[in-house]
Amino acid sequence: MDGRYLIGLDFGTLSVRGVLIDAGSGVAVDHHASPYRHGVMSGSLPQGTPLPPGFALQDPGDYLTAAEEVLARLGRDRHILAIGLDFTASSPLPTTTDGTPLSALMPGEPHAYVKLWKHSAQRYADAINAAGGAFLDDFGGRLSGEWLLAKAAEIAAEAPDVWAAADRFMEAGDWMVLRLTGREARNLGFAAYKAQYSAAAGYPPGIVPGLEARLARPLPAGSPAGELTDDWRRRTGILGPATVAVAIIDSHAVLPAVGAVEGGTMVGALGTSAGYLFLAERRVPLPVGLEGVAHGGSLPNLWLYEAGQAAFGDLLAWFVRTFPRGPDLSASFAAYNAEAATLAPGDNHLVGLDWWNGNRVPHADSRLSGLLMGFGLDTTAAGIYRALMEALCYGTRRVLELANAGGLDTRRLVMTSGLAETNPLLVAIMADVLGREIELPTIAHATASGAAIHGAVAAGVVADFKEGAARFGARSRRMFTPDSQRSARYELLFSAYCQMADLAPVRAAMRRIGPQGGAAPDIRVTAATAKPKPTFG
Amino acid sequence: MDGRYLIGLDFGTLSVRGVLIDAGSGVAVDHHASPYRHGVMSGSLPQGTPLPPGFALQDPGDYLTAAEEVLARLGRDRHILAIGLDFTASSPLPTTTDGTPLSALMPGEPHAYVKLWKHSAQRYADAINAAGGAFLDDFGGRLSGEWLLAKAAEIAAEAPDVWAAADRFMEAGDWMVLRLTGREARNLGFAAYKAQYSAAAGYPPGIVPGLEARLARPLPAGSPAGELTDDWRRRTGILGPATVAVAIIDSHAVLPAVGAVEGGTMVGALGTSAGYLFLAERRVPLPVGLEGVAHGGSLPNLWLYEAGQAAFGDLLAWFVRTFPRGPDLSASFAAYNAEAATLAPGDNHLVGLDWWNGNRVPHADSRLSGLLMGFGLDTTAAGIYRALMEALCYGTRRVLELANAGGLDTRRLVMTSGLAETNPLLVAIMADVLGREIELPTIAHATASGAAIHGAVAAGVVADFKEGAARFGARSRRMFTPDSQRSARYELLFSAYCQMADLAPVRAAMRRIGPQGGAAPDIRVTAATAKPKPTFG
Repeated sequence: MDGRYLIGLDFGTLSVRGVLIDAGSGVAVDHHASPYRHGVMSGSLPQGTPLPPGFALQDPGDYLTAAEEVLARLGRDRHILAIGLDFTASSPLPTTTDGTPLSALMPGEPHAYVKLWKHSAQRYADAINAAGGAFLDDFGGRLSGEWLLAKAAEIAAEAPDVWAAADRFMEAGDWMVLRLTGREARNLGFAAYKAQYSAAAGYPPGIVPGLEARLARPLPAGSPAGELTDDWRRRTGILGPATVAVAIIDSHAVLPAVGAVEGGTMVGALGTSAGYLFLAERRVPLPVGLEGVAHGGSLPNLWLYEAGQAAFGDLLAWFVRTFPRGPDLSASFAAYNAEAATLAPGDNHLVGLDWWNGNRVPHADSRLSGLLMGFGLDTTAAGIYRALMEALCYGTRRVLELANAGGLDTRRLVMTSGLAETNPLLVAIMADVLGREIELPTIAHATASGAAIHGAVAAGVVADFKEGAARFGARSRRMFTPDSQRSARYELLFSAYCQMADLAPVRAAMRRIGPQGGAAPDIRVTAATAKPKPTFG
Repeated sequence: MDGRYLIGLDFGTLSVRGVLIDAGSGVAVDHHASPYRHGVMSGSLPQGTPLPPGFALQDPGDYLTAAEEVLARLGRDRHILAIGLDFTASSPLPTTTDGTPLSALMPGEPHAYVKLWKHSAQRYADAINAAGGAFLDDFGGRLSGEWLLAKAAEIAAEAPDVWAAADRFMEAGDWMVLRLTGREARNLGFAAYKAQYSAAAGYPPGIVPGLEARLARPLPAGSPAGELTDDWRRRTGILGPATVAVAIIDSHAVLPAVGAVEGGTMVGALGTSAGYLFLAERRVPLPVGLEGVAHGGSLPNLWLYEAGQAAFGDLLAWFVRTFPRGPDLSASFAAYNAEAATLAPGDNHLVGLDWWNGNRVPHADSRLSGLLMGFGLDTTAAGIYRALMEALCYGTRRVLELANAGGLDTRRLVMTSGLAETNPLLVAIMADVLGREIELPTIAHATASGAAIHGAVAAGVVADFKEGAARFGARSRRMFTPDSQRSARYELLFSAYCQMADLAPVRAAMRRIGPQGGAAPDIRVTAATAKPKPTFG
């Protein structure tokens, strides 16, 4: 395997980050990132067309430029065995049959661009949800406005010309695979989680006229899509087979990189927000409060259940930015962490609801807001900071308990991503609050490395994800063990958290005092809303 | 009246503040303050005896020394028509028949000293309340541990030798009058509010053996107690009749100084905490949630109802100290006020419960705590600061609405004291939240001036308090008028405040997460608690 490599590409919201892994040693030997030229477009299109409020678009041409730079930088004159890539989702775009983005043909039309994951067509999701259907059962009865079906409905209703011109409607991750290989090979994960596809029932019918014809039958995670095209080889200087795997949802790519490839595992990605993934060998009905489940889309032969917290690291960053204690954010975090670490559970007498960006589990209500109670005249700033960390951990415990109550086994708890790595106090508090041992795998570029493992599986470099994880995933892990005395003290505080979270009048008050709906008026949206219907277009 | 003067003395927690008023012009021409030598004793007695946790004592000798300095400074070689004084309450002390404080005879005995208002004998109050009695009706069924009856019970139970040696048990204000005049002339206000005396029923019998014999029949506010003794004249150089009025509860002394001498008036003293006084010509039963009522103790022929908020200015000071924005408290307040003033009602999307020091109205529960809800990732520090100001005003509105619902008329709303004078934004918000015009009388040394008016009435310098208020009270007032649009927006927020305040499970959660009772062990207290009984001693 000497001199043979894997490349993993992680297409995030603002840039693509690549990692080059030596297939022999398993070591990441280089990495490189390239930002998207137009970033996230929310004010206007590149040629000047102003965008309606709430729009968040991307130019698919930016992905190609950035990918070329990263692939050339990491792969030139190297023997590349495999390329894997992950992508934000749902970030779909309309194209012609050959994959030409409609944004290249209609550059002044907002609906022709990639609708980034954070672009929400909530009104259409609401209408779809209201119409109902068995396909909603695996998603708690609620599609998100960020998902593909709602975005297709939005285009069909608000830009019928664009919809008519679209031969295909696909996730940007699947589109990138099409461009790299010349073959349309969609991933089951995108289809299942973002377009409610199931092997048994296919895509839900009748939501948007003509949608099914614009989609395709997807392939399981780890499937090969094809080899890198000659054109890309010329432009990047890549040698070797360079087998490209089907793309993978970015938040799921981390699993093999942190060694989470078997049932009974919960993986928490503690970033700006927090995402929780539960791996199961056998299906149970979606536990009440969790957000979605599908099979084989992210790891073969495993059911993957999803849940999350809408604010996580950004909640702590909010506090530290709002009440700084040092010359920069990092110094402030250090100061707060140092003082918060001296407090025992309950010392601050505070309990908070971690809903600074709304609540996902169990209420799925973005209009809910943060709450802190227990203030006294001796409450300290560090006590509040610690209460926010504790509130985040109560939210995690809520997710875990709902999963367990619904029959999901969680023998292993694995935490990863930014907060887990940079804030060990937070993970220690979490171990105490959960009363469970937590694994923190040590691996740089975890998401891109996970994508590279998808490539390795697709190319047959390894027999399966288990071998891929062992050879190319985290080599060491830090363990956080709960202290039984501290855990016992958190029982009382967590019960107060649950009591507050479950008081319907509290949530009603939050909705009343919060920002009151109504984006700025947009004639087309208003017109569509005036006559909600289950079928769009 | 040329060259004739009144003196008002305001005995506060840490010092006595005096004002000299020209009886002809009505102008305050001088003022002086003198701190108590031993301040508040909570760690140990002057000779070294350590104090049990929670004790807050004063040395009565300190009052004499401080009063002598102030009287001499203001009164030497001047013709003084009258002296009035107000005092913290309930701050009682045991004495011999001639008024010698037992602390002078038993200097190592904590129970022989003045038990300052903030010293709470709550266990004894709880036992008295549990035993019940009609005398509780005028106090919402609940005596406070800060009041005289509970403190008498504490001495009788925990220091029977002290109780046996005490010929008299009296408020420090009444004791000061005894020292200045040589006559025991107690004030009806102290007796009614702090010892539950009523003209019809006297003191409640049977609470503490021998207590009634140690008390005395009190006189209405504005009664003359006597003239200054020759000894005091020698020591201070005071000339003229120097008629001393019976003392008055410090929080009630402000009434004539701000022109509140008739029924239908609500006066708010917005200090560290907030006290509200409702004047009524006719009696109504104590409105639910209010704290106490008595007749004639503070102004003749008027019913005076009391209520309050346990934290007020100290809540804002807590925030500004915890999250400073300038080199000192004053600069931080200025910065926060400037930014908070730019926000409209509801802009911060926050609602708070102002219970940082527990709640007095309507729940009378010191174990309740502060709460803030509505946080988002765009919440600002000034938004939180403003939410705290708004929460304080919601608390005020709650008091006002309970008073009105109970049949009290409030044609005039008068606000006074520190916060009212130094924070006009707070008073403006209060006018909007209440939807009512607020008067802010302009007068320096308001409390001491009010005491001086008591002296003037007692000495016959004026015919009554109405004339006293006109001649020696505030000469101008600032009016704060509500804005109807802002008031309308506060309706929604106030309804959310009430909804949260009235949710019993929220209060239960506060009690669970708060500090859990139990002062550090003290054998005597523990022993007394082990056998609670309605009669002590």
